[in-house]
Amino acid sequence: MIFSKKLESIIIKNSSLLCIGLDPEIEKLPKHLLKENDPTFAFNKEIIDNTSDIVCAYKPNIAFYEAYGIKGLESLKKTIEYIQKKHPEIPIILDAKRADIANTSRMYARALFDYFGADAVTVYPYLGLDAIKPFLNYENKLTILIIKTSNPDSDVFQNLKVGNSNLPLYLTMAHEIKKWNFPNIGLFVGATYPEELRNVRKIFPSSYILTAGIGVQGAKTQKAIKAGVDPRGNNLICNNSREIIYADKSKHFAKKVRNKAKEIRNIINKYRYE
Amino acid sequence: MIFSKKLESIIIKNSSLLCIGLDPEIEKLPKHLLKENDPTFAFNKEIIDNTSDIVCAYKPNIAFYEAYGIKGLESLKKTIEYIQKKHPEIPIILDAKRADIANTSRMYARALFDYFGADAVTVYPYLGLDAIKPFLNYENKLTILIIKTSNPDSDVFQNLKVGNSNLPLYLTMAHEIKKWNFPNIGLFVGATYPEELRNVRKIFPSSYILTAGIGVQGAKTQKAIKAGVDPRGNNLICNNSREIIYADKSKHFAKKVRNKAKEIRNIINKYRYE
Repeated sequence: MIFSKKLESIIIKNSSLLCIGLDPEIEKLPKHLLKENDPTFAFNKEIIDNTSDIVCAYKPNIAFYEAYGIKGLESLKKTIEYIQKKHPEIPIILDAKRADIANTSRMYARALFDYFGADAVTVYPYLGLDAIKPFLNYENKLTILIIKTSNPDSDVFQNLKVGNSNLPLYLTMAHEIKKWNFPNIGLFVGATYPEELRNVRKIFPSSYILTAGIGVQGAKTQKAIKAGVDPRGNNLICNNSREIIYADKSKHFAKKVRNKAKEIRNIINKYRYE
Repeated sequence: MIFSKKLESIIIKNSSLLCIGLDPEIEKLPKHLLKENDPTFAFNKEIIDNTSDIVCAYKPNIAFYEAYGIKGLESLKKTIEYIQKKHPEIPIILDAKRADIANTSRMYARALFDYFGADAVTVYPYLGLDAIKPFLNYENKLTILIIKTSNPDSDVFQNLKVGNSNLPLYLTMAHEIKKWNFPNIGLFVGATYPEELRNVRKIFPSSYILTAGIGVQGAKTQKAIKAGVDPRGNNLICNNSREIIYADKSKHFAKKVRNKAKEIRNIINKYRYE
C-alpha cells in the first residue's frame, strides 16, 4: 500500500503520532530474555505486542542490528516480518541513513525496500538529486531526507550560512529539495532544534516530517511538537526510543513500556492541537 | 597492526596505489560462476587470487552485499576473512558511508571494525566531530571522511559558498576537520573533481586520500593523480571497481582482470611521480 495512506489510517486509528524506535542493545535487555533463542527479537516482539494500538509507526535503526553481524540482521528481518504479519497496518521506517552515488544507492534501495521490506527509509541528501533518485523511484515508499540531525555538534556544518541567500545549509537544502518536487519525500529534523523544525515545516507545510528525541520532558517536547506539526496538528512522526524501550528491566518490563508509550503518546496529543 | 604501517608496506611491496573495489552484482558475474555455492565469494576469490601482488588495498562497498540480504553479507564476511587469512598484508577498506549520532555511530563502528574486521571505513562528516568520535576511537584503524563525492550532482550542496570565507562547503569542511587533529583520519575526494582533490591535498599534505574513478582513460586519470598524490607521489589510494572486475565475462575472466589491474596500476605509477 502507498505509504501516505498507510500512515494516515494508523494515525487516526491509534490516535497517535508516536513512533517507537526499536534500537535494542543486548547489554541493556531485561536479563530474563537472554535465555531466549533470539533475545533481540523476543524483546522487540514484547514491545510490539504491547504497543501496537498506541503507535503510528515502528522505526528500527539498522545500526543496532548490524553491530551484532549476521545474527543481528536476522533479528531485524524477523522483527519486520513479525510486524508485517501481525500488524500490517503499521508502517515500518528503517532508519539506515544511507547515501552513495546512484549506482550504489540503487543497491541500498534494494536492500532496504526489497529485501528488508521497509515502508520508509532515511537517507542523506548531501550528494544531490541524482544519488537520491534510486530511492525515490520506489513510488509507494517514503524516502525521508535528513535535513538537521539532533546531536550537539550538528550546527558546525549544518548551520553554516551558505550561498547568495546566506541561509543556513540545512535550510538551503530544504529549499532545494522542495524544488525536486517529489510527492514521496519526507524530511528529518531533530527535536532538539525546534527553531529548525519550524523553518522546515514552513517550507513543507504538508509533508511528513520525522523527528526524534520527543519524550516526557514537557517543555522541550511542547516546543518541538508545536514547531513541527502541520497546520492541522498532524504529519509529524515523533520518535522515541530509549525512554520507552528501556522503561524497565524486570520480567514485567512490557507493562512499563506500554505505560511509558501511552504517556508520551498522550503528551504529544496534548500539544499537537495547541 | 596500525593501518598506516600496513598500507605503507604494501604500497612499497606491490609498487602500487591501486585499490580494487569489490562490488559484485550477481547479474553481472561470469555465467559459469552461478553454479557455485556462493557465486559472489567465488568471484571475489578469483579477483583476489589474481591481483594480490598488484594492489595496495581492497575496497568492498557494503551496499553490493546488503542488496542480497543476509546471504550477501555472508559473502562479504567470507571475502574479508579470505583476504585476512591469505593476504594479511593487504588492508581492507569497507566502504559503508555511515553517519549517525554518537550513540548510534558506536554501533556502526562495532559492525564495521569489530564484526566485519575492516582496517578502514568511509564515513560522512556532516554531523560534526561528536558523531565521528566512536569511529576515531579505534586508533589503529583509518576513518576516511567523505569530503567530495564523484557524482554529477555533488556540486549542488558540496560546492555551496560558505559565509565569510566564501570557500565552498567541501573545503570549509576540510579546514574544520584539519582542526580536529586526529592522526587516524583519511579523506575521500572523487577523481572526477581534480581541482577539489588538489585543494584538499593542500590542506592535508601527508594524510591518506582515497579517490575513486581512476581508470585507463589517460587525461582524466593523469589530472586526478597529479592533483591527489602527496609531495612524494604517495598516499593517494586510487580505487577502480567496474573497469577491472568486469573486464571480461568468460571462464578465463581472471586473467583479463589481472591484466586490466596491472595496466591501471602502471598508469598510476607513470603519473604519480610526474
